[in-house]
Amino acid sequence: MNLLITGGAGFVGARLARALLARGQLGGRPIERLHLADQAPPRPELVADARVVAHTGRLLDQCEALAALPLDGVFHLASAVSGECEADFDLGLRSNLDTTRALLDALRQRVQGGARPARFVFSSSIAVFGPDPAVPLPQVVSDDTLPAPQTSYGTQKLVCEHLVADYTRKGYIDGRAVRLMTVTVRPGRPNGAASSFFSGIIREPLAGEASVCPVPVETAHPVSSPARTVEGLIAVYEASREQFLGRTAMNLPALNVTVGQMLDALEQVAGPAVRARVRFEADARIAGIVERWPRAARSPRASALGLEGDPDFASVIRQYIADCETGADGEQALRGLKR
Amino acid sequence: MNLLITGGAGFVGARLARALLARGQLGGRPIERLHLADQAPPRPELVADARVVAHTGRLLDQCEALAALPLDGVFHLASAVSGECEADFDLGLRSNLDTTRALLDALRQRVQGGARPARFVFSSSIAVFGPDPAVPLPQVVSDDTLPAPQTSYGTQKLVCEHLVADYTRKGYIDGRAVRLMTVTVRPGRPNGAASSFFSGIIREPLAGEASVCPVPVETAHPVSSPARTVEGLIAVYEASREQFLGRTAMNLPALNVTVGQMLDALEQVAGPAVRARVRFEADARIAGIVERWPRAARSPRASALGLEGDPDFASVIRQYIADCETGADGEQALRGLKR
Repeated sequence: MNLLITGGAGFVGARLARALLARGQLGGRPIERLHLADQAPPRPELVADARVVAHTGRLLDQCEALAALPLDGVFHLASAVSGECEADFDLGLRSNLDTTRALLDALRQRVQGGARPARFVFSSSIAVFGPDPAVPLPQVVSDDTLPAPQTSYGTQKLVCEHLVADYTRKGYIDGRAVRLMTVTVRPGRPNGAASSFFSGIIREPLAGEASVCPVPVETAHPVSSPARTVEGLIAVYEASREQFLGRTAMNLPALNVTVGQMLDALEQVAGPAVRARVRFEADARIAGIVERWPRAARSPRASALGLEGDPDFASVIRQYIADCETGADGEQALRGLKR
Repeated sequence: MNLLITGGAGFVGARLARALLARGQLGGRPIERLHLADQAPPRPELVADARVVAHTGRLLDQCEALAALPLDGVFHLASAVSGECEADFDLGLRSNLDTTRALLDALRQRVQGGARPARFVFSSSIAVFGPDPAVPLPQVVSDDTLPAPQTSYGTQKLVCEHLVADYTRKGYIDGRAVRLMTVTVRPGRPNGAASSFFSGIIREPLAGEASVCPVPVETAHPVSSPARTVEGLIAVYEASREQFLGRTAMNLPALNVTVGQMLDALEQVAGPAVRARVRFEADARIAGIVERWPRAARSPRASALGLEGDPDFASVIRQYIADCETGADGEQALRGLKR
């Protein structure tokens, strides 16, 4: 089978690509081609795999060419992140809304030309949820909570969820929209996402660097490790339509934690000196975005697919450390960790 | 003040225009110009008013020019209807999604150029609600019911609700999305809307013609008279942001009736011979769309604005008869009514 991952050079996209190549099959069918589309080139170890084809460039310009490939399935992960979309309204509309629409329309044309509809997993986000005076946000959001996005990023994700549902209803794709929790611990440098600090307060101290937490210690948030996130994307792809249950978007499993619990776990795994590298300094812009996000999430539909959240945040940190140890830049990333 | 009605030659748009011209003011400010944009020219009696300016042509091509007018407010009613959108996917996307987006972006550019944000009332629809295996439809939908549209029309309306909310949050417009109930009794001929028969089973018998009801007599549905619908649009325009309560879309008031109750009211108002002109003949296409719509609606936010649904369906029919009697084609429209 032939698969496409948009955002295939990104953090989750690259990890999904590695997982798929390692499995060698999806839904019992061998993976012959894995197309990775992204603005940036994919990681060298992925390109080195004979099954991988890189499509580097702006996705909006590539949708027609990509849809002309003999694709069985698509994981559409490419997206501008929340902070970028708040800062640059046009960028968010173009990258998140127009690009998804162009990809859906290109896949529709394929089907109207006689092709089978591609299976299509769309990565939405818990950022679709937010408080509104008319619709107070529940303490814990679930699959059936009414979304009221409070950011352009959340709005664009929600809009695309509904487009994916309608293109699916019409038979143009076999789409499944899933809402990712905040994926942590992300490697590398801080990005433009307002949620970037949820990785930074763990990653930087482990690298021996100081880190600033821009929100209060009691800030609660649903998170997920990269491994559990990728596991969720694959399980949703492999589910039958009946198992996915309907066409509305599904929450992926969450580990509901506070910043304080995250730092306690850091101390438990890496010691008090590492935790002490985090200091609190309020950032009104970041806090203003984060306080409009859910404090916790439930995922009954994902549970019914056999998916569960990470057991605790210490295990999420240990996953990050293990990834660094097997990765190329592990020594650098863990130089703050005494062993 | 200067106002724009898109869809200003349509049934609700023309009635709204007449109501605004008759009031002469909106929110206490005199109406100096009323711009009516539509594919079709406005009705002659509207064009005859010195305050009216007609903009006839495809709305998508006119958005920039319209937004360049010194507008205080917009009623965005223009839309392809449900049956059309199911039959022609591209038409629905273009007329309902792309056109609304173009209008919003043109209004955004005005504000980015220093203008005050225009007040913007968007007519959404109860068609945003529908049953989904993951989210069963409640017996009565309310403002906080989770939408799960089962038609392209409903999807496009819902998507635009969220765009209106986000453009409002960013300060590009002062937007209020309201969900119209099925407006009945519409004059004229059947249109492409799947809900067209909700008017046809009253209008045709009153005109002395046979009418076919394509759904069972027990079919329940939330409806509204044109007068109550226009009253709702005006009240929502005049409400403060605090009164509108948040940015999520608001249901306009409904009269919840069954087809049987509608026909009982027809008999009560016009006699058994008129009712006998309606025969039942199942239409799987229409029934398939209608059965995925809500059976009844509640509107607590509209009630808080002092809006209420029509008291009963007989009064809705009497409103139609009174409109015909004062209109140009009244005699023709009521030739089935013995008086």
